[in-house]
Amino acid sequence: MKDGLYTAPQRDMQFALYEVLDVETELGRRAGGAPMDRETLDQILEGADRLCHGVLAPLNASGDREGCRLEGHEVRTPAGFGQAYRAYTEGGWSGLCASEEHGGQALPTVASAIVGEMLGGSNISFALYPRLSEGAYRCIRANATPELQAVYGPKLASGEWTGTMCLTEAQAGTDLGLLRTKAVPDGDGAYRISGGKIFISSGEHDLAPNIVHMVLARLPDAPAGTRGISLFLVPKFLPDADGRPGERNGVYCDAIEHKLGLHANATCVLRFEQARGYLVGEANKGLTAMFVMMNSARLGTGAQALGLTETALQKSLAYAAERLQSRAPGQERAVTRADPILLQPDVRRMLLTQQAWAQGARMFLYWLALQIDAEQHAADPAERDRAGGLLSLLTPVAKAFVSDNAVESVNLAMQVHGGSGYIVESGIEQTLRDVRILPIYEGTNGVQAHDLLARKVLADEGGRLGQLLALARAQADAVEASGAGAEFGAPLRELAGRIEEAVPRLAALAAGDPAQVGASSTDFLRIVGHLVYGYFWSRAAQAAWTRLPEGDPLRAEKLATARFYFEHLFPETEMRLRRLFVPAERYTNPCALAV
Amino acid sequence: MKDGLYTAPQRDMQFALYEVLDVETELGRRAGGAPMDRETLDQILEGADRLCHGVLAPLNASGDREGCRLEGHEVRTPAGFGQAYRAYTEGGWSGLCASEEHGGQALPTVASAIVGEMLGGSNISFALYPRLSEGAYRCIRANATPELQAVYGPKLASGEWTGTMCLTEAQAGTDLGLLRTKAVPDGDGAYRISGGKIFISSGEHDLAPNIVHMVLARLPDAPAGTRGISLFLVPKFLPDADGRPGERNGVYCDAIEHKLGLHANATCVLRFEQARGYLVGEANKGLTAMFVMMNSARLGTGAQALGLTETALQKSLAYAAERLQSRAPGQERAVTRADPILLQPDVRRMLLTQQAWAQGARMFLYWLALQIDAEQHAADPAERDRAGGLLSLLTPVAKAFVSDNAVESVNLAMQVHGGSGYIVESGIEQTLRDVRILPIYEGTNGVQAHDLLARKVLADEGGRLGQLLALARAQADAVEASGAGAEFGAPLRELAGRIEEAVPRLAALAAGDPAQVGASSTDFLRIVGHLVYGYFWSRAAQAAWTRLPEGDPLRAEKLATARFYFEHLFPETEMRLRRLFVPAERYTNPCALAV
Repeated sequence: MKDGLYTAPQRDMQFALYEVLDVETELGRRAGGAPMDRETLDQILEGADRLCHGVLAPLNASGDREGCRLEGHEVRTPAGFGQAYRAYTEGGWSGLCASEEHGGQALPTVASAIVGEMLGGSNISFALYPRLSEGAYRCIRANATPELQAVYGPKLASGEWTGTMCLTEAQAGTDLGLLRTKAVPDGDGAYRISGGKIFISSGEHDLAPNIVHMVLARLPDAPAGTRGISLFLVPKFLPDADGRPGERNGVYCDAIEHKLGLHANATCVLRFEQARGYLVGEANKGLTAMFVMMNSARLGTGAQALGLTETALQKSLAYAAERLQSRAPGQERAVTRADPILLQPDVRRMLLTQQAWAQGARMFLYWLALQIDAEQHAADPAERDRAGGLLSLLTPVAKAFVSDNAVESVNLAMQVHGGSGYIVESGIEQTLRDVRILPIYEGTNGVQAHDLLARKVLADEGGRLGQLLALARAQADAVEASGAGAEFGAPLRELAGRIEEAVPRLAALAAGDPAQVGASSTDFLRIVGHLVYGYFWSRAAQAAWTRLPEGDPLRAEKLATARFYFEHLFPETEMRLRRLFVPAERYTNPCALAV
Repeated sequence: MKDGLYTAPQRDMQFALYEVLDVETELGRRAGGAPMDRETLDQILEGADRLCHGVLAPLNASGDREGCRLEGHEVRTPAGFGQAYRAYTEGGWSGLCASEEHGGQALPTVASAIVGEMLGGSNISFALYPRLSEGAYRCIRANATPELQAVYGPKLASGEWTGTMCLTEAQAGTDLGLLRTKAVPDGDGAYRISGGKIFISSGEHDLAPNIVHMVLARLPDAPAGTRGISLFLVPKFLPDADGRPGERNGVYCDAIEHKLGLHANATCVLRFEQARGYLVGEANKGLTAMFVMMNSARLGTGAQALGLTETALQKSLAYAAERLQSRAPGQERAVTRADPILLQPDVRRMLLTQQAWAQGARMFLYWLALQIDAEQHAADPAERDRAGGLLSLLTPVAKAFVSDNAVESVNLAMQVHGGSGYIVESGIEQTLRDVRILPIYEGTNGVQAHDLLARKVLADEGGRLGQLLALARAQADAVEASGAGAEFGAPLRELAGRIEEAVPRLAALAAGDPAQVGASSTDFLRIVGHLVYGYFWSRAAQAAWTRLPEGDPLRAEKLATARFYFEHLFPETEMRLRRLFVPAERYTNPCALAV
């Protein structure tokens, strides 16, 4: 933190990238992936920090105060956002991981994970404008025809135009099967889209001359439910022959929401009125196509959560270092003097908790980004499969575990501030308002937990989970062999064993009562989250022990934080394992809520 | 909840009062206390609900939107607050528990606890105007001279004037020893007070013609630190010979804070400029005198927390009952239909958690109110002592445990709402902003935890805690003897045993390292909180089993919620007990926060 503004923790990012994850070697092993040396990555760290600390962070509070304005059907973003967006695109940050054929830099996904974290940490309202474009771009690249890709790929890759994700309708949120927006063939291969969408982030704004909406809708004779949903690309302006924004299309922003936070991002009510759209992917398979974007958005939510956790940590650490109250324990009792509250153990507990959550998430999310590339580019097909399996298993964990921890972290950061934290000028109250969307959007955390337990574990008969358990056990062995200490291995091995026992027991309960999945899923996700963080904190301890010189303060810091994690946060699994098998009927007692 | 507004849960309040706590018998045993029959109490429930549901709840959202305005040194409260305050005082709600000699109704404190809960649940910003008067009144009654009592007692009891609590200064929050406000003898027995105070709730407003500030300040030759603090009564207007507001005193509101929530309550920066004030209690013993008010405010914070937990429960329950998404587990899979999300086990988990926290808090806080009266009025001196000991032991628990659970509850309530919860119109986002002050003000929850472990347990060598453990064990025996089930007794007995073992171990650790108290205190408070809630949920299960007829839906509901509490929430103690003995040095590693 410099000048009271978010600063990227470059050294910790490097520790995750180089000492823990060994990204140079990891990426070097991949065929087809772009080369990525330490110099390039370090330049990205520095350059993105300059943008985020220097340009975006200073607009965070002013954007929150000013908010967005709707004029007619046009949204005005807060002062400075237009310039900041130009700085973002002109700096080349938009096309970092886009394909070279679309003018992108084709860098490994980990570059995008790093930038996503910094954007979220410095100005999450701003981040949502360009970052949804990235999801739309990935979705188009994976699913759209070459003709659509040729027109829209370069525009989204360069950030000249931005993208949105139009799923939710008033009656269809978690349950997309209920959506009603209609698509009628237009005779020339295109479609006419009509209906209303709500909660569309960045759905309308003045940062770019065109907006590309990715819209779920139903064809005339589509089956009911989720099997009758198709995906359409609907531009705000139809491109002319030169690819410039031409005729205005029939999509209008009728309102923007008043929200707890994210004031500088326009959350739009969109009306589609015979809007011209183009089918993306196969008819009635829109959800499958959209999943590329949804998964991208879920990992993106994890990155935002990490960014806000880091912001909160920096703010509360700075406050705790400067706020003088009471003598610290063990200090001489001179009543007229006071020590920084940073020296109070209860304050350190709150700071260390944030630190363990932030740095654990960082290793986890960078590693997941490596799996994205490995799934596509690893030379060995078995490694591609394994990476894909782990990615699909852990995407809900990256969304839900990281965001729930982020909410807890920001709450702790406010608590460290005491009364000052409740005051607008402290800045932490904005972080608290902003962070609270993360467990809700892109599929609530309850939906993520259900996805993990029902689809990724039980339906898979524990296959993908087995990969994770094997990783955890191998790491427990490795850290012990390294001499860093059994304290970083034994708990991990024990938890792996308990999860392995739990799954068939849950499967049996769920076979007897379909409600059991929903009854156990949130606790199960938290347990798996700790297996993951335990795995990375074990790797961090090992890396610090074996790769950092003895005099390096980072070595002591990492070992201390890993120890704190295992002693203080990891025991949450004790509570969760107790709850895991509470029979679902306990939640379905018909009288229990007749208040 | 009626018309989307907070409604007092009268039946659950009655269950706590009559079936669980047997208040009629309890209060009947007291000498000196006012009689309190069921009819009177029921009238209070109904009358206060009419005021809170009918008058205060409708001003909650509008008050939040409008906020307070500072004009010169005067604060304008939001539209409707003046009328509402008149309805409050004219209804006699102000003097409910005030002495008859001051024109009060001298009702038992439990009446005030009930009304405090309803005020907090319906409009916490409003609640802070009259409720601080109650604390000021109690403080004056306990500490001020008969002359001061004669002038100010009736004014505060009737609510004609209001009170404030002026402790915090910019450099002195948790550490009151650092405060600098000065009091200089005026020659005629009065004093001149000069200095600045911040974060003064209800410090200035237009609801009453006079405001009575209770101000901590230092006499000229006072010792440094907390032993040199005295308490003064400083009215905004000096009363004339007839007791009417006369000459303007030198206390001015220079600013009001912009806050996350509580927008309709003026949080003031007050400047005292040679303001005339009167010593309350002994010189240099101001903190002792102020503790009457602080303890009242801490219990009041618990009541507000309970009120907001109840509000959140009502809102999320109403939303979950009407929001249709997906089929519930076990329902026929017809894709075009959807069930209320109330039927989803993961949603019920969130609702039941709120319910267990709310109803557990209710039994606990009403019981604490009974202890206040027992301490003063019980015929048997041993019972007075025991009540006083339990009250002092559990006041920090009532403040911190109840408010932390309230924050969790409101977070869950927002989560139940999904995306709608993040929108201002849902109302729950205001609750989330309002509730977040509770773990901060009136002594942060970290301060409460330290008070509990250091002063109420370790310094007391576990004496008062022993009383609580004895209660818990007797209840475990009683519930088992009642036939309600060992599940409501065994966990309580086991936890009592583990706490009993923990205390000497903590004492030994703390003797070796003074930092251990701060390192263990938050976990310790949560563990004691569960002993308390376990005790009351055990009593609730027993009362439902033995006193409610078999066909009564409340009987099944209470047993189910008690079971949910013990199976789902109580296991938090497993996690906390694991953490409790982590050595303090783990929190004091000098490198651990060198980010």
